[in-house]
Amino acid sequence: MSSVSPFAPKRFPVLPAIAGVTVGGAACGVKYKGRKDLFLAELARGSTIAGVFTTSRTASAPVDWCKQIVGAGQVRGIVVNAGNANAFTGRAGMEGVAHTVDVAARQIGCKKEEVFIASTGVIGERMPSDRITRAIPRLHGRLGERAWKDAASAIMTTDTFPKGASATCRIGSKTVTIAGIAKGSGMIAPDMATMLAFVFTDARLPAPLLRRLLKSANDRTFNCISVDGDTSTSDTVLLAATGKAGNRSPSGVADPALKEFRTALEQVMRDLAQQIVKDGEGASKFVTIDVAGAESARAARKIGLSIANSPLVKTAFAGGDANWGRVVMAVGKAGERADRDRLSVAMGGVTIAAAGEAVEGYDEAPVARHLAGREVHLAVDVGVGRGRARVWTCDLTRGYIDINADYRS
Amino acid sequence: MSSVSPFAPKRFPVLPAIAGVTVGGAACGVKYKGRKDLFLAELARGSTIAGVFTTSRTASAPVDWCKQIVGAGQVRGIVVNAGNANAFTGRAGMEGVAHTVDVAARQIGCKKEEVFIASTGVIGERMPSDRITRAIPRLHGRLGERAWKDAASAIMTTDTFPKGASATCRIGSKTVTIAGIAKGSGMIAPDMATMLAFVFTDARLPAPLLRRLLKSANDRTFNCISVDGDTSTSDTVLLAATGKAGNRSPSGVADPALKEFRTALEQVMRDLAQQIVKDGEGASKFVTIDVAGAESARAARKIGLSIANSPLVKTAFAGGDANWGRVVMAVGKAGERADRDRLSVAMGGVTIAAAGEAVEGYDEAPVARHLAGREVHLAVDVGVGRGRARVWTCDLTRGYIDINADYRS
Repeated sequence: MSSVSPFAPKRFPVLPAIAGVTVGGAACGVKYKGRKDLFLAELARGSTIAGVFTTSRTASAPVDWCKQIVGAGQVRGIVVNAGNANAFTGRAGMEGVAHTVDVAARQIGCKKEEVFIASTGVIGERMPSDRITRAIPRLHGRLGERAWKDAASAIMTTDTFPKGASATCRIGSKTVTIAGIAKGSGMIAPDMATMLAFVFTDARLPAPLLRRLLKSANDRTFNCISVDGDTSTSDTVLLAATGKAGNRSPSGVADPALKEFRTALEQVMRDLAQQIVKDGEGASKFVTIDVAGAESARAARKIGLSIANSPLVKTAFAGGDANWGRVVMAVGKAGERADRDRLSVAMGGVTIAAAGEAVEGYDEAPVARHLAGREVHLAVDVGVGRGRARVWTCDLTRGYIDINADYRS
Repeated sequence: MSSVSPFAPKRFPVLPAIAGVTVGGAACGVKYKGRKDLFLAELARGSTIAGVFTTSRTASAPVDWCKQIVGAGQVRGIVVNAGNANAFTGRAGMEGVAHTVDVAARQIGCKKEEVFIASTGVIGERMPSDRITRAIPRLHGRLGERAWKDAASAIMTTDTFPKGASATCRIGSKTVTIAGIAKGSGMIAPDMATMLAFVFTDARLPAPLLRRLLKSANDRTFNCISVDGDTSTSDTVLLAATGKAGNRSPSGVADPALKEFRTALEQVMRDLAQQIVKDGEGASKFVTIDVAGAESARAARKIGLSIANSPLVKTAFAGGDANWGRVVMAVGKAGERADRDRLSVAMGGVTIAAAGEAVEGYDEAPVARHLAGREVHLAVDVGVGRGRARVWTCDLTRGYIDINADYRS
């Protein structure tokens, strides 16, 4: 049950320092014994921030706090714990957040409204915030520019490996760097929940611009993955920029100087998003789904996620079964326009069905060989427009059931 | 793998004859060997019909045909096969339907537009319609008033037991009878799909009225169940009325004379719907979810189905785990209004959380005992209005994965 994902990298990637950012991880004992469970980041004065958060109507106390302060776009500290989500914890939960923010702000020497909080773990259990606040001063004294692995490890719940990614690019004449960490063993985990990602750059980017860059990249990365379709109460993605690279501030999101940065940011976020899928609970296969011919990119993504979330499709992949009928079913239930009689389905590059029926003389053997591998590719054209999207998911195996049903027995 | 559901009744219920209806089942060999796979019903002249069908954008050829003719509200015959869904079969699929309709109409002596077709089974394989048309004459000669068990058995795919239900009530001074059969081992099945139900009554009910009665009952029965959230390309519910009971035709859906009938119809359809859930693939527990305090009945149902479809909630039930945090998560992701700080959750009648947090001194022992049983009750109040709904689902077990992933290996 505690076996490591078959997709786990041999080692944590080497991540660069981001000027103006120090990070660290420590064990504060919120729930786990003998492992790091507290992440702290300090950012230089003048750093900007943007965030996207869960759409859940039962969001956690930390999400409430972050949503309240993110509009101002200023950040000096980020505090994250694993083991307790501080969700559905009533007034005590809000008080715990306030107390943590207070301690961190005093430690860093900033305003409370510059401290962001995220929590991941059990829902509905009272949060022992004092364990966090007691650990902050010591952890703060030990922050470093390169402690990314500690940081990535400290935010894990049932993740089987820490997740990090980075990229370097140019804005105008200046070299800028992006580095990020994430967690999420599926959208969900036994008694735990949540996808979290924290991305840092030394680029100089005003908060309104950062928001647009984050939203755009997020729509094509973290919003394009699914392990089981369940949405956490705590999902949080933060993008912070210190400005230390000294680039000229871009005129807007369409500034040509930002082209490389947009690509690099999307690359880092896609890398992290894919690592989350590859660490999906019980995952034995990593599945890339390309949808084309939809009414719009949004419609294509919705169709892609309908396929990605279908238990029927996911169990077929687990069994290495080229069950394209289930793909057709999942397209049909997405609620987006699709022309049944122009629909085509391909797996591993082999067209299985086209123009609304199975291809004459279709040979299943090469498709079966493709599906026996670890990485699966599915392409669907729904035949009504030019909208495209790519989404990623994993298969649904006995391992998922074992992790989520049996961990108490 | 082929073990029978723990909820299977000891024997098929005794169902009454419906004046003006004869039914039967036969083996025509579409896919299965040595079992009945073809259902035929003949209805008396003047019978009315209403239907609800899958909302899938990739609906099957039979669904297309039924939708085309159901508006006229007239029925003389219903032909259903198991083993092949005739979905995503292109022009050949439509031709197969046309041929089957033609043969059945000639046999019965009616118009083609009075013959309804449903197919359940593999998607995307060419339908051997000639096997059906060859079997129709002989089956037609053997139809009987009480052959319900043959009929219910002939429409099974991976169902582990045939499903039937009936009720008797009065409309004005006349006694009327309702009997129905259904299939569906979950919404889906290995390589097969579909929920089908056929309900018959001897009541005299004009087609427009029948449509309203069916829609209303359907919204509170078949639309309130879920096994895995996947929607078939072929879901079909038909309600046919022969008029042989000789009741005065009601003035409209609000006619007080219809009160008993509405209750009885809902009872029969709820019974069939619950049997489908109880035969859900791999089901070990039958779960009833009551949602209250929602903005509307529709919102309550959506929240209920969000809980019922959550893999996280379903695996928790499989493990007998009182994981109410997952219920909160599923409420949050439903997208309907809910007041986190007034939310309450109860299992087996024991309140676990109220006013947005765990109940002080909550004792898990009685809840754990409740969850160890076969029938589980979950009640949620989302604290914003007066909308209520009840939905039914089953747990998600290794058995589901075994059936859907491994059947080819």
